[in-house]
Amino acid sequence: MSKELRTVSGMRPTGPLHLGHYFGVLKNWVELQHTEEAYFFVADWHALTSDYADPSRVRENIRDMVLDWVAAGLDPEKCVIFRQSEVKEHAELSLLLSMITPVSWLERNPTYKEQQQQITTKDLGNAGFLCYPVLMAADILMYRPHGVPVGEDQLPHLELTREIARRFNHFYGALFPEPLAMLTPAAKCPGLDGRKMSKSYNNGIFLSDPMADISQKIRGMFTDPARLRKSDPGNPSVCNLFPYHEILSSIAEREDIRQGCTGAQLGCVDCKKIFLKNLEAFLAPLQERRASFAARPSAVTDILLAGNDRARAFALQTMSAVREKMGL
Amino acid sequence: MSKELRTVSGMRPTGPLHLGHYFGVLKNWVELQHTEEAYFFVADWHALTSDYADPSRVRENIRDMVLDWVAAGLDPEKCVIFRQSEVKEHAELSLLLSMITPVSWLERNPTYKEQQQQITTKDLGNAGFLCYPVLMAADILMYRPHGVPVGEDQLPHLELTREIARRFNHFYGALFPEPLAMLTPAAKCPGLDGRKMSKSYNNGIFLSDPMADISQKIRGMFTDPARLRKSDPGNPSVCNLFPYHEILSSIAEREDIRQGCTGAQLGCVDCKKIFLKNLEAFLAPLQERRASFAARPSAVTDILLAGNDRARAFALQTMSAVREKMGL
Repeated sequence: MSKELRTVSGMRPTGPLHLGHYFGVLKNWVELQHTEEAYFFVADWHALTSDYADPSRVRENIRDMVLDWVAAGLDPEKCVIFRQSEVKEHAELSLLLSMITPVSWLERNPTYKEQQQQITTKDLGNAGFLCYPVLMAADILMYRPHGVPVGEDQLPHLELTREIARRFNHFYGALFPEPLAMLTPAAKCPGLDGRKMSKSYNNGIFLSDPMADISQKIRGMFTDPARLRKSDPGNPSVCNLFPYHEILSSIAEREDIRQGCTGAQLGCVDCKKIFLKNLEAFLAPLQERRASFAARPSAVTDILLAGNDRARAFALQTMSAVREKMGL
Repeated sequence: MSKELRTVSGMRPTGPLHLGHYFGVLKNWVELQHTEEAYFFVADWHALTSDYADPSRVRENIRDMVLDWVAAGLDPEKCVIFRQSEVKEHAELSLLLSMITPVSWLERNPTYKEQQQQITTKDLGNAGFLCYPVLMAADILMYRPHGVPVGEDQLPHLELTREIARRFNHFYGALFPEPLAMLTPAAKCPGLDGRKMSKSYNNGIFLSDPMADISQKIRGMFTDPARLRKSDPGNPSVCNLFPYHEILSSIAEREDIRQGCTGAQLGCVDCKKIFLKNLEAFLAPLQERRASFAARPSAVTDILLAGNDRARAFALQTMSAVREKMGL
């Protein structure tokens, strides 16, 4: 790869990916692979910070997620796709960075406090959970990227990564660039019920869902609750379906739909049909790519083996520089 | 190695070793290598938990410490001598164990609290310092030992290791034996000034000290402060030198010394001469062995390379079992 800029990003293997993942993250990754030397990793160690009690599904989730990645358009020839836990240097760098990371920085991490309050079904009082921003800093700094693609909610983590980089450079000499936040204007893609799309809310449209399942999901969706008949004028801004048109339908279609809905000309059933047609046009090539990879049982393994090697080669260089700087 | 029991222990490379290290730890290690499959490691990552700001001397300290080990009688043919940071699996296991270790267990660690209060010359508020008992648990459990040699002050750490092992076994199925404490009745070996022997107190007799330096150190030692002349009866129980006789002089000699001192027959200068003779007899073979290893510039490197390989081979087995148990 002879691209000038380098970036890195990862995703926890928590299950099959849905439209929210695609429009929030993957779409952006697919674009980045053309312009940057890009490292994308399966953050399987991160999955353990909260799913430590039963990680048995992680293995299966990894395969599903990588299939979703290549389905979405990540090309193993254009970017490096690897599995975090296969590049042990991430653990080593995390350990070294933990030596210079104040506990108070970790305790101040807003996600740490929020999740401890909000998630009551599991105990998040473990060291791994407290320290995951250090692991995240290691994941990022390992590839010395100029910037990383992040959503708004990830900004505090990136800031911590930048602070850790600064502290390393201060103690041991300049090595890590402070990665910039490449804020991605992600399209809003709520779940079927209007809440955030999430597997745990059971309100997702998954990239690998068969169209028949999706039809059924869409049929059951609430639209404007005040609109009982087609002859009632509808209000797109309270409709759960309309945000999907904003993502997947053309501007002209969207305008027609808005007028048809507010003018009581277009019924919700027909409106859903338009969406299903557009969604099918969007998903069909993804699902074809997915099927062609899934047909070769070793495809995911091969992609990861090759990617792990490339990531490890880079990581070894970084670690050698790290040890050199630290005088170890 | 076909010994039935296995043990593991490590030491931080903080500088040359003194008599306190020898009689507190090394003597015991040397015995263990004959009866157990023994792994002894240079805990260089642990050195960073407190010496993170300037680890540049760690490299040199490692060489000195390994020379002291083989001088003391550790035989690379009889035990595995390795460097922690060269077996990355320690970092990996530490990371995995951190996922199931409550932060509250770490905060309760008495050493953590004590050292934070006592050591005011450096900031010990870093994650690496909070989490070092997890790394220690990984260091130990990696070799699935039946027991580990510890001093009284290490008991809380070992208890934490046992708790972490129990928790792992509880979540993922039995893998780690809970290592027993092999409490070693270490001879008391205070420093030249009667305080604990410690490099930072500048009151140590180092295994590699030339006899001329040691003579000078001993000449300057305080004995019974109330005994100004040989004709004054002395009191061995308040004398800084007498504990050394208890370690290095024979029972008969000790009795003679006690009588000569309390009976105002044996002067402090002569008493010191007896000690120096015995110390020289003890140190000479150590220093010869040290010199013979030090004469081959690659000796320490060779010992560590071979030991790292053997430790890594064992660690890889453990990690494979760990991942299997966790379903990764």
